[in-house]
Amino acid sequence: MDSALVDQKASAVSPPKDLESGPNISSFRLDNGLEVVVIPDHRAPVVTHMVWYRNGSADDPPGKSGIAHFLEHLMFKGTAAHPQGEFSKVIAELGGQENAFTGNDYTAYFQRVAKQHLPVMMAFEADRMTGLQLTDEVVAPERDVVLEERRMHCDADPGAQLGEAMQAALFTHHPYGTPIIGWAHEIEGLSRADALAYYQRFYTPQNAVLIVAGDVEPEEVRRLAEETYGKIKPLGETPQRRRPKEPPQLARRTVTVNDEKVEQPVWQRCYLTPSYRTAAPGEAEALEVLAHILGGGQTSLLYRILAVEERIAAAAGAQYMGTTLDDTRFFLYALPAPGVTLEQLEQAVDRVLAQFLVDGIDEATLERAKTRLIADAVYAQDSQAMLARWYGASLSTGLTIDDVKQWPARIDAVGAAAVLDAAKKHLDRRKAVSGFLLPEEKAAA
Amino acid sequence: MDSALVDQKASAVSPPKDLESGPNISSFRLDNGLEVVVIPDHRAPVVTHMVWYRNGSADDPPGKSGIAHFLEHLMFKGTAAHPQGEFSKVIAELGGQENAFTGNDYTAYFQRVAKQHLPVMMAFEADRMTGLQLTDEVVAPERDVVLEERRMHCDADPGAQLGEAMQAALFTHHPYGTPIIGWAHEIEGLSRADALAYYQRFYTPQNAVLIVAGDVEPEEVRRLAEETYGKIKPLGETPQRRRPKEPPQLARRTVTVNDEKVEQPVWQRCYLTPSYRTAAPGEAEALEVLAHILGGGQTSLLYRILAVEERIAAAAGAQYMGTTLDDTRFFLYALPAPGVTLEQLEQAVDRVLAQFLVDGIDEATLERAKTRLIADAVYAQDSQAMLARWYGASLSTGLTIDDVKQWPARIDAVGAAAVLDAAKKHLDRRKAVSGFLLPEEKAAA
Repeated sequence: MDSALVDQKASAVSPPKDLESGPNISSFRLDNGLEVVVIPDHRAPVVTHMVWYRNGSADDPPGKSGIAHFLEHLMFKGTAAHPQGEFSKVIAELGGQENAFTGNDYTAYFQRVAKQHLPVMMAFEADRMTGLQLTDEVVAPERDVVLEERRMHCDADPGAQLGEAMQAALFTHHPYGTPIIGWAHEIEGLSRADALAYYQRFYTPQNAVLIVAGDVEPEEVRRLAEETYGKIKPLGETPQRRRPKEPPQLARRTVTVNDEKVEQPVWQRCYLTPSYRTAAPGEAEALEVLAHILGGGQTSLLYRILAVEERIAAAAGAQYMGTTLDDTRFFLYALPAPGVTLEQLEQAVDRVLAQFLVDGIDEATLERAKTRLIADAVYAQDSQAMLARWYGASLSTGLTIDDVKQWPARIDAVGAAAVLDAAKKHLDRRKAVSGFLLPEEKAAA
Repeated sequence: MDSALVDQKASAVSPPKDLESGPNISSFRLDNGLEVVVIPDHRAPVVTHMVWYRNGSADDPPGKSGIAHFLEHLMFKGTAAHPQGEFSKVIAELGGQENAFTGNDYTAYFQRVAKQHLPVMMAFEADRMTGLQLTDEVVAPERDVVLEERRMHCDADPGAQLGEAMQAALFTHHPYGTPIIGWAHEIEGLSRADALAYYQRFYTPQNAVLIVAGDVEPEEVRRLAEETYGKIKPLGETPQRRRPKEPPQLARRTVTVNDEKVEQPVWQRCYLTPSYRTAAPGEAEALEVLAHILGGGQTSLLYRILAVEERIAAAAGAQYMGTTLDDTRFFLYALPAPGVTLEQLEQAVDRVLAQFLVDGIDEATLERAKTRLIADAVYAQDSQAMLARWYGASLSTGLTIDDVKQWPARIDAVGAAAVLDAAKKHLDRRKAVSGFLLPEEKAAA
């Protein structure tokens, strides 16, 4: 088992494009509500088998932060039919790989095996959708594992501390402000009863998406799915996601972490923006292009001016984290060159942004950005796992297969005016948090 | 009806001292769980009658912010026995006063009348503890009243916006970060069913404290209470307050509001500190003394140095908001003199604080602060309503009558070392939010 948190950046899955002419994806629904997506890929005799549940950390009940991620760990603890460790042992013996991850909006389980082993994977995964057996003997030690994971990867890392504090400041009310792994004092209180209640609420066929990518045909997947997942009874009521909404944001915020472990200062900024699901038509695509123009690689505006021309930054970039159910984050960052303060760097970033709004976007820059975004996505189709993951993340955050397929065309349709409008509207510091990561202060008040 | 929000500052009720030799307060509990406190005050033939419910905005269910305050409004909408307006009309005809307020931790209803009318007040107040009748016809218009209250007092006031944003940034997880009045988009969704569910959960004798101050004897109050409140059946289960706890705070934060309506810039800072209920013994009292030394009036350190000596501030002060159930706020503020920026002012405040830690506290300053705090409290005993309110707020936030009575002795026992320790431990910028209120920026990025 290689259980992992999805970090905020990685969860913005890089999407393949030109999918209208891409694989012939089919989807159907079993009688119990399970949605099934089949992505044929006959280049090699392997399959990627994923089950996505439409619940993530943002669905953790109040006071139970971390339960989604904790349950992901507990899903490896065995069932009545298959004791702890058997599933992973079988995968290893078959030469396969497995993984699991928890995001803000979903929890997913993944195996990659030779095609003939798909039925075994489906049988095991269907079995643990309802058959999980939890005793205090496995729950308590696993909770310690998670607490140790939190201590190592969050509490001991000033950069992670800053990230958590920025998200907490950006989302004053919405649960994206709570870390996926949870707050330590709440993880400590998670019990077997909490885990079972959560499991029984969310781990149901109506709440899941099965994605099978690889050397298979839809009819075969349907038959196998009916023999395995199809035997699970639907729950009385489909789980609903009820999340608090952000109030209007009117105050710009900064967050500063000083820590002796910091060697490289970092400046960051997160703006609260719409996601692919919540944006007006074309707006999310404009934000995607905007992120690429401002900060996608070494030809981007921020990198070119700050790192190459003015040499005040060692690096600079931007990212739009559009694949979320609710309003999301547009992210800027820069590392200062030696002798440059973060305040100077921030002022320089804001100067570049202001000048960008004045200058506008020339056609060549726009086309280069769009071509690159679409090309990245087309290349991504080479990766069976990446494609499966893109569909899984999209379908778990309120999008459809058509939304994914038409993404390249929608990116292609973005005009310079839409990108500038998105920048003017959404790069609003009253809806943003700036973050400063710094070494220990000499004289802290 | 003069319904009012308790603002964050006013809720730190100024406490009377030397109460060991003060009024002979008695308390008892009715069979249905109602706690009763009688504060004799025979100087005039009047009584103050208050009912405090141990639920405030911090107990609002997730997604239902504002429900505590909304219900406070709805408590004036009449019962089966007494239609809307009758209670208030009777009070007015008797020459009395009434009020109601909602805080983070409590909701309270208050009348002040000539002593012979106490039985009538008790009958009315007991009646609406269980007899409230709500129809959609009264709920919907009252919700509009609250929304208008929010628009006028919060949304249209940049200072209130800054306050809300600071609390939201200070409390990343705990509900003190949510405004007492609620967020507009959640108030809009509050229904009759929500109000009734909340009422039935919290408005019970076990969850209430009755405070009667004035020209009465305990036995008379007991008899009257048994005839009125005593007839109410206890609820099956005493309401529990289950609130999320703050994770450790490690990042210092700032919040900035720019608004064209701002004429006087303001600098503020809130530190997260223990309250009287959560602090180690003596620690809250040390914070109280610290606030007075730093910023209590015109002889305080911040005022003297910044406003009198250096003339860079027009005003400066500090306040400890100790009367809360959970961890609370220690508050600093300063107004800049003309030509002084908020950054300069903040640096000056931090310089004064750092120098204070170096210089320590001389005995005369410490004694002056303690004497003044205790004297203020003794004077406050002159006010029947203030005394009733102090006991009500204390008993609603987890303290006891003895805690209140012994407060002057505990303040008197505070030593200089304890004050300095409290300053070193709690005036920690990693646990604080600084706030900047400024006019509109000329060139906002």
